[in-house]
Amino acid sequence: MARLVDAVVIEDGKALRLAFADGGTSRFHAVWLRDNALDPETRSPRNGQRLITVLDVPEAVRIGAADVSDGGSALVVRFAPEGKEIVYPAAFLAAHAYDRPHGGERRGWTGPEIERWDRGLQEDLPKAAYGRVRSDRQALGAWLAWVRRYGFAVLTGMPTTPGALCDVVGLFGYVRETNYGRWFEVRAEVDPTNLAYTNLGLQAHTDNPYRDPVPTLQLLACLENTVEGGDSVVVDGFMVAIRLQEEWPEGFDLLARYPARFSYAGTPDVRLEAKRPIIELGPDGELIAIRFNNRSAAPFTDIPYEAMADYYRAYRRFAELIEDPAHAVTFKLEPGELFIVDNTRVLHARKGFSGSGTRWLQGCYADKDGLLSTLAVIENAHRETTA
Amino acid sequence: MARLVDAVVIEDGKALRLAFADGGTSRFHAVWLRDNALDPETRSPRNGQRLITVLDVPEAVRIGAADVSDGGSALVVRFAPEGKEIVYPAAFLAAHAYDRPHGGERRGWTGPEIERWDRGLQEDLPKAAYGRVRSDRQALGAWLAWVRRYGFAVLTGMPTTPGALCDVVGLFGYVRETNYGRWFEVRAEVDPTNLAYTNLGLQAHTDNPYRDPVPTLQLLACLENTVEGGDSVVVDGFMVAIRLQEEWPEGFDLLARYPARFSYAGTPDVRLEAKRPIIELGPDGELIAIRFNNRSAAPFTDIPYEAMADYYRAYRRFAELIEDPAHAVTFKLEPGELFIVDNTRVLHARKGFSGSGTRWLQGCYADKDGLLSTLAVIENAHRETTA
Repeated sequence: MARLVDAVVIEDGKALRLAFADGGTSRFHAVWLRDNALDPETRSPRNGQRLITVLDVPEAVRIGAADVSDGGSALVVRFAPEGKEIVYPAAFLAAHAYDRPHGGERRGWTGPEIERWDRGLQEDLPKAAYGRVRSDRQALGAWLAWVRRYGFAVLTGMPTTPGALCDVVGLFGYVRETNYGRWFEVRAEVDPTNLAYTNLGLQAHTDNPYRDPVPTLQLLACLENTVEGGDSVVVDGFMVAIRLQEEWPEGFDLLARYPARFSYAGTPDVRLEAKRPIIELGPDGELIAIRFNNRSAAPFTDIPYEAMADYYRAYRRFAELIEDPAHAVTFKLEPGELFIVDNTRVLHARKGFSGSGTRWLQGCYADKDGLLSTLAVIENAHRETTA
Repeated sequence: MARLVDAVVIEDGKALRLAFADGGTSRFHAVWLRDNALDPETRSPRNGQRLITVLDVPEAVRIGAADVSDGGSALVVRFAPEGKEIVYPAAFLAAHAYDRPHGGERRGWTGPEIERWDRGLQEDLPKAAYGRVRSDRQALGAWLAWVRRYGFAVLTGMPTTPGALCDVVGLFGYVRETNYGRWFEVRAEVDPTNLAYTNLGLQAHTDNPYRDPVPTLQLLACLENTVEGGDSVVVDGFMVAIRLQEEWPEGFDLLARYPARFSYAGTPDVRLEAKRPIIELGPDGELIAIRFNNRSAAPFTDIPYEAMADYYRAYRRFAELIEDPAHAVTFKLEPGELFIVDNTRVLHARKGFSGSGTRWLQGCYADKDGLLSTLAVIENAHRETTA
């Protein structure tokens, strides 16, 4: 538990410096503290929303006085010119400290909640039973935590009824309906509008990169599978991106620096197009998304002539690393099994299959906002129970 | 119509240089041309998807020969080592030329489909009648084109039945269901879980920045409105961002360079969090999204101490420009009226209203992928009809 030992007003009251019992120090600005005040006039006690705007914070806001209180568990700040006195828990200040090194991370960094993986994950598939996950909140939390950690998880023991995968989405969030429907059939067709609806192998890919916003989760459930082949493969795109960066930093940068283009117009009522990079970084260099799909890649036109040959070399090398068996986790979906992927991170592939027998899958899309929210609610309830 | 006059193989066959009848020249790489070949072995004639991967393109691909044909309307390329001969329409090559200046645009550029606006738009509101838009594809196309151009449009003559706004979404795309439902009620409540459900004024904001992916469209429909006040206000966030850039480029850069944080936990079953910048740029500097919401802004922790004071100055100035009446378009929604905003661009506000009378709105979210796809289908059909 964070404990404060000292508070010193600095920069003529524009900031203060806190000393914590663990020896750390952290500065906070008056404007930041005032904007993030926790009193009921600043934050609604009912719903936690901020009741003021940044324009309600006086431009000349200063810290008049700052004192450690409650044996170090709180800080009392008196603001000028308002004369407002606000109490901040030491834990709140420690959790939101921003006076620390920033931007030293290499481009492509990810947070501690992400664990990259390769074929080693094959030995320990993140797999749970639908019956448990549906009836036990902690089991659901564990399964969702795998999706956050690995971008991938398997569910067994599903009913093989059409649309049952939407019930799985209902456990944590909401289906993203698209032109393919709330869910869609994935089986070989005579006159396919999408190559997914053939018995061809499909190179590892992320789905629908031609859509902006891209669906951030995809589920694929198996209802029947009596063909030869047709195995499912998943590849951690974050792992592959970092491997590319390790062996060729400039190649990684090329795929991040220039937008690619994707398009789909497989039926007359649809003309989807998007312009987004193959490797997407946040403004602070955080690795936030991978887009990769040979079938829907449109002609790339946003890369200068001088960079295009190297861009294609990087694209080819990225594809080679994606195809490298060292990165592949392979399994054959049985009826009643489903897998979910974080479609901004994990690529999925299908091996080709023979014409005899039936391979019947159903797919649907959903979004990570709901999944991560449900997971946070479960984790928070667990913390409060155990505390 | 683009017409070719000459084709010269360059760089030992790694590229070629085309000369067009209009005097322009454009180089293309062998690898790009091969990857984007239009023959039925490379692209499915049925659905337009690419049948090969970049790994199917020989690493040593070269242009053996290149000839203008069909009076300049096509280019015939023979590739080594495959010996494959591919025909490219001159129009395809002209439309996808990448040998042009790149990156010279200033950060925050937008394409020609975007028109920034200020209060002048008040005199010429992009407004159409639901009856027309529903029954006439060209009228629907015109209305959707306003959303693409201005990020905002109004619809009149809607039925005042609950959920009717979902039928509007059905004209072009799909509802994005969230924890608020497929649609949600916006009216004053006694114990509100969100400040939207009060009679308070709401500062201009984008919705749900605590959600990733953010809903890219929002619709607000009026079912009853007999209160004093409660006017709706919309502000072009792209215009405001560029105004900030014009008067203080470093301020613009600060809001684009560092991620902000947003959160919402207004009910016990929800803990939504997102980390995204207030001004989002693509890797090529294109202005792609604005996020701004005082109520759900979480403590910002991704900005270094050294930059935080200036960041807050930029945030304050951005808020002042958003509040500037020069940028505001104001109207009072009547029953049966609806407005749609591009929630990645246009902020909306509500003026406070009095307790007498009833103000009953319904809101829902949707996404731009479907809207832009439907618009492209309509425009393409129109082009083919008139051609």
